[in-house]
Amino acid sequence: MNALDKIMRPASVAVIGASSKPHTIGFDITKNLLKYGYTGTIYPINPKDTEIQGLPAYKSVLDVPGDIDMAVIVINSKYVLSTIDQCNQKGIKGVVIISAGFKETGEAGKELETALVNKLNEYGMTCVGPNCLGVVNTDPAVKLDACFAETLPIRGDIGFVSQSGALGGGILNILKDLNIGFSQFISIGNQADVNADSAIEYWENVDDVKQILLYMESIADPQKFRTLATRTTKKKPIIALKAGRSAQGASAASSHTGSLAGADKAADALLKQSGVIREFSLQELFNTAKVFSHCPIPKGNRVAIVTNSGGPGIMCTDAVVEDGMQMAQLSEETKETLRSFLPAAASVKNPVDMIASAPLEHYKKTLETVLQDENVDMVVVIYLPFLGLKDIDVAKAVMEIKAQNPSKPVVGVFMTTQDFFQKISEMEVNIPFFMFGEQAVEGLSRLNRQRLWVERPLGQFPEFTVDKTVVNSIFENLVRENRDQLTTGESLQLLSSYGIRVCKDGEATNLEEAVELADEIGYPVVMKLNSKKISHKTDVGGVRVGIENADQLRAEYTDMVDKLKAKNLLDGMEGVIIQEMVKSDREMVCGIATDPQYGPMMMFGLGGVFVEVMKDVSFRLAPISDQDAMDMIKSVKAYKLLEGARGSKPADIKETQNILLRLSQLVKDFPCIDELDINPLMISDKDGEPIAVDGRIKIRLNEVK
Amino acid sequence: MNALDKIMRPASVAVIGASSKPHTIGFDITKNLLKYGYTGTIYPINPKDTEIQGLPAYKSVLDVPGDIDMAVIVINSKYVLSTIDQCNQKGIKGVVIISAGFKETGEAGKELETALVNKLNEYGMTCVGPNCLGVVNTDPAVKLDACFAETLPIRGDIGFVSQSGALGGGILNILKDLNIGFSQFISIGNQADVNADSAIEYWENVDDVKQILLYMESIADPQKFRTLATRTTKKKPIIALKAGRSAQGASAASSHTGSLAGADKAADALLKQSGVIREFSLQELFNTAKVFSHCPIPKGNRVAIVTNSGGPGIMCTDAVVEDGMQMAQLSEETKETLRSFLPAAASVKNPVDMIASAPLEHYKKTLETVLQDENVDMVVVIYLPFLGLKDIDVAKAVMEIKAQNPSKPVVGVFMTTQDFFQKISEMEVNIPFFMFGEQAVEGLSRLNRQRLWVERPLGQFPEFTVDKTVVNSIFENLVRENRDQLTTGESLQLLSSYGIRVCKDGEATNLEEAVELADEIGYPVVMKLNSKKISHKTDVGGVRVGIENADQLRAEYTDMVDKLKAKNLLDGMEGVIIQEMVKSDREMVCGIATDPQYGPMMMFGLGGVFVEVMKDVSFRLAPISDQDAMDMIKSVKAYKLLEGARGSKPADIKETQNILLRLSQLVKDFPCIDELDINPLMISDKDGEPIAVDGRIKIRLNEVK
Repeated sequence: MNALDKIMRPASVAVIGASSKPHTIGFDITKNLLKYGYTGTIYPINPKDTEIQGLPAYKSVLDVPGDIDMAVIVINSKYVLSTIDQCNQKGIKGVVIISAGFKETGEAGKELETALVNKLNEYGMTCVGPNCLGVVNTDPAVKLDACFAETLPIRGDIGFVSQSGALGGGILNILKDLNIGFSQFISIGNQADVNADSAIEYWENVDDVKQILLYMESIADPQKFRTLATRTTKKKPIIALKAGRSAQGASAASSHTGSLAGADKAADALLKQSGVIREFSLQELFNTAKVFSHCPIPKGNRVAIVTNSGGPGIMCTDAVVEDGMQMAQLSEETKETLRSFLPAAASVKNPVDMIASAPLEHYKKTLETVLQDENVDMVVVIYLPFLGLKDIDVAKAVMEIKAQNPSKPVVGVFMTTQDFFQKISEMEVNIPFFMFGEQAVEGLSRLNRQRLWVERPLGQFPEFTVDKTVVNSIFENLVRENRDQLTTGESLQLLSSYGIRVCKDGEATNLEEAVELADEIGYPVVMKLNSKKISHKTDVGGVRVGIENADQLRAEYTDMVDKLKAKNLLDGMEGVIIQEMVKSDREMVCGIATDPQYGPMMMFGLGGVFVEVMKDVSFRLAPISDQDAMDMIKSVKAYKLLEGARGSKPADIKETQNILLRLSQLVKDFPCIDELDINPLMISDKDGEPIAVDGRIKIRLNEVK
Repeated sequence: MNALDKIMRPASVAVIGASSKPHTIGFDITKNLLKYGYTGTIYPINPKDTEIQGLPAYKSVLDVPGDIDMAVIVINSKYVLSTIDQCNQKGIKGVVIISAGFKETGEAGKELETALVNKLNEYGMTCVGPNCLGVVNTDPAVKLDACFAETLPIRGDIGFVSQSGALGGGILNILKDLNIGFSQFISIGNQADVNADSAIEYWENVDDVKQILLYMESIADPQKFRTLATRTTKKKPIIALKAGRSAQGASAASSHTGSLAGADKAADALLKQSGVIREFSLQELFNTAKVFSHCPIPKGNRVAIVTNSGGPGIMCTDAVVEDGMQMAQLSEETKETLRSFLPAAASVKNPVDMIASAPLEHYKKTLETVLQDENVDMVVVIYLPFLGLKDIDVAKAVMEIKAQNPSKPVVGVFMTTQDFFQKISEMEVNIPFFMFGEQAVEGLSRLNRQRLWVERPLGQFPEFTVDKTVVNSIFENLVRENRDQLTTGESLQLLSSYGIRVCKDGEATNLEEAVELADEIGYPVVMKLNSKKISHKTDVGGVRVGIENADQLRAEYTDMVDKLKAKNLLDGMEGVIIQEMVKSDREMVCGIATDPQYGPMMMFGLGGVFVEVMKDVSFRLAPISDQDAMDMIKSVKAYKLLEGARGSKPADIKETQNILLRLSQLVKDFPCIDELDINPLMISDKDGEPIAVDGRIKIRLNEVK
């Protein structure tokens, strides 16, 4: 039994702070429990009353004769701790603390919350809140509405977690208004104990929760979220709206929820690699939920469109292509069948335009025919009002055919009135209806995304044989020198010890050594400043490429020293790195970045001067699987270059993937690595192999073991 | 008087094909004219009836006693031509042809339409349609509903043109449902005469049309559209939905409207440079129309958010930033005023969070205070249902304050029920209300875009002194040789004659000449294959860079020849181009592309191997103004590189702009140029000047004058 069962399926509930006074939360909670028909026993707790809303009331939980599974606490925050003591004494294992006045209010509240958490841990109690809206379970066996949202819930298949109480309530209202039902709702509030993770873990095995919706402003434990979500999304979709994307939004979020809003780049990476479908607006969230409520996961990405008007068909076609799906190629047989009953002016290729005069019979037969085509995975049915044909009749006809063909997703685009949608929202439907084609197609694209995720292997976390001693000795040296930045030489040496191909190079401490080294490596060479003080070498003229001979090397060296001197930067110069010059016009970047909240992230993309300008870079939280690495590589636009655009040698993708995996292993082995950039990671013109040409590594000295 | 006045403001209308039989178009048109209360005289024309819907009917227009301004024709297409003759005989100057059966039906229909156009021209008649839904003018002085859409129109300020009849009708329904009124509507159908251009030209000076909405699947005359739209958008916004963006969508479009859907790249360029606000879905189109209907153009882009719940405030903040606007910095005075009446838990910085319990008074005072802040240009007011506060009361309070402060746009985000929006749609409102924050903010971003467009100078079309004789002689030579592709040498020579800096170079026909030339230019040099047969030189190994001395030149030359021989491509080789090697890691591309329907387009962006991969390229229809050129340069991501990222020399933007303008002049002077690529256009590391390093030009030989 999951600990949340005590809260979500209690046999009895105490409302601590229950009230007879309307417009108080203690009143509303009790009222909702009663009104929604809770199947267990309700014990109102209030020191002043003996009866509340027709139920016998008790001074404290200790006065209640029977057992209590769960307590909803709606009293002033200053009494919460002593109440928790009483709950423990009574043997209550689950509490929902509605009361505000905790960490969201500042220092004193933060201390109170810490004390609360300590008590919960001590007592082994599960807690939702504080500072939350409550919980709901619409299961007919439970019928628990322990929440002060305005509307009573309607039954459906969604598990919904909201970090914002008020917004959660707003969302419940809208869901009800749109006739989107849910199974369970948890308003996690300050997440002192139960958070999105707990809910996902719980719902993973709750059969009547078929999809999970999350409204989040922060992610409490990214790695735990990742583990749980990655597993659960294989069974049921998780759809998340994460607010606070922009710096300004994040700062607004942190002022209001009392928890630091994480960097969006990291959040985005986390959601992607966990198979969570991320939405960027509430409207999209609802659309997607609606589609998942009424559609199976399709077998492929081929969409057929059935319409009685050309224009919307074109707009949907545009949307299908732009959302990364395909327009289905109807079979000859299908076209023939369509031709046999549709008028001559109709178009039997996809989009199938039955023309404006299409009667109900044509809607039915066309949809049926198209659904039976093996080349079709999903169908959009469009209806534009036409004299003599009622929207609601068309909807019923479409639903009739859908009921006979349940295996493929069908969505309706009905460009008609609000009145139609009002009617539909009061009906049992088996397909989702939208006013606009783009919404419907967007919904299908989410089904398709879920399909791809379910089909995608979970991936392996290979272990490479590496030489840790090299890294250890470099880091020890850094500690000794109290220096957190590796030199280029050290960086490349470290990468090499982890099996990453670096270009031939060596360090020279003066000009004559440099010339000797260049002779050894062979011209053309690149000369790079080796300085412990300067990390962006390009900015100070510290990188000289295409040096063809000793004379040129001498000239460039002298010039570099002069320039550094002029800028007063000569001080940290330890000499230069001489490198073989790798011929390549494909410069990538890869590395490790650390988010203060989410931890180490892997990074891959188009490198060189383009990193900041084009931002064609993908991120994933470390550690990454081989699948994650491949996703990272394939998701950047520059992947086309790697494939070998315009006659160039295709890049060794497997080796590129391995570099990312080796780096992932590196930061797992050495969590003190704070930043690591291989820029450029050049794709050799000759053999397509990725070669680390320059590296920049920074560590957190105090974390070196 | 505009010719369209006869159609949109007729003193009398004949309905040719009027009918007493319900469910026919002839019936509906007559019925709508009557029902909507047309202020002029209606003459039903039908050879079989003497009375139709209570009006005296006539056998033909020739039998009508009085003058007729306009005729609506709803008869079988085969009788249309003879009817047009009668209309002319009667002196009718405007016709609306509802009848289908013209070019949308194939060859015979196309011929019929050509014959129709000839007659219209001969008679000097203005015609809407054929194959259309009709026209509407809601002006109380006219009240003309000559259209068979399902719903009667409601009065408003929109001029709406729809290319698709059925969709036009659907849009009218939805507009009515959303309580968005319009002033005039023209369903242009096959656009035999009147098209979007005519409507824009007409509405430019019709005062009660305050915004123009277009649904288009093709643009009949791009240059005319551009001229008219560029002028009109300075006075009133034009908002366009152009369907058929994807290749598949375009092909669906062309099968259904009988006109080729244009390349979307060109359409997009055209709309951008004409100041047209392009929307990509009907929902966005309606949102935008709603916002323009109720909001003035703001003075700046600073948005303030007033909310009673944190979550939606954060989501709106994200949207403000992502839509390219700024969060307003509230003045200290504003914050102090807010602090004086809001509770301590409220946040007085933007977003202003009045917290859930905010009463009506707080909504009013907060909005008033924020509106009076000089740092605020627009305001979003958010309401999330809270016990004891009715949505409609909050809406009224907000509108009351807005009425007292009309100069700044205010939008409402009411995350409440459909019922609220139903009520709102039946009220007179002075601000637009949305269910979702993103919609509201998107609407504000359109106001902001219109502001920027109105503030943007129209731009100049400078004339440069150029040497046309060089171009003429090159083209003459091409004609002589029956060759449509210029050699690299010719291309660079041509560019140079138009004042574009090209890198030092020369042609050599054999190895020894090449060595001599390289000595003259100075090493390092680039060697490029000069062949009349091969245009993508890189693909065949025909470009060798970084040649440092004569020995290397010899080696590379021999290697190139060997490789060409091996591939059997030696045949067209005329020798090589030897070029100075420009030092630059910023390779741009610019040039001319020709769209079969839209004509020559200018192109600018990130060059080198990235053109196809990153697609960081902007387009504008030629000729371009200096403003257009600057917009092109600034709209690519790579602009940051030009500005001089990471210590590199800033590019000479003025000169880059001039290159685009010179190319624009070139294609104006020589319209036979079909394609022109300067790739790369290198930004010199030394002086930041753009230098054409390679050029590829193709002409249409038969158009050389």
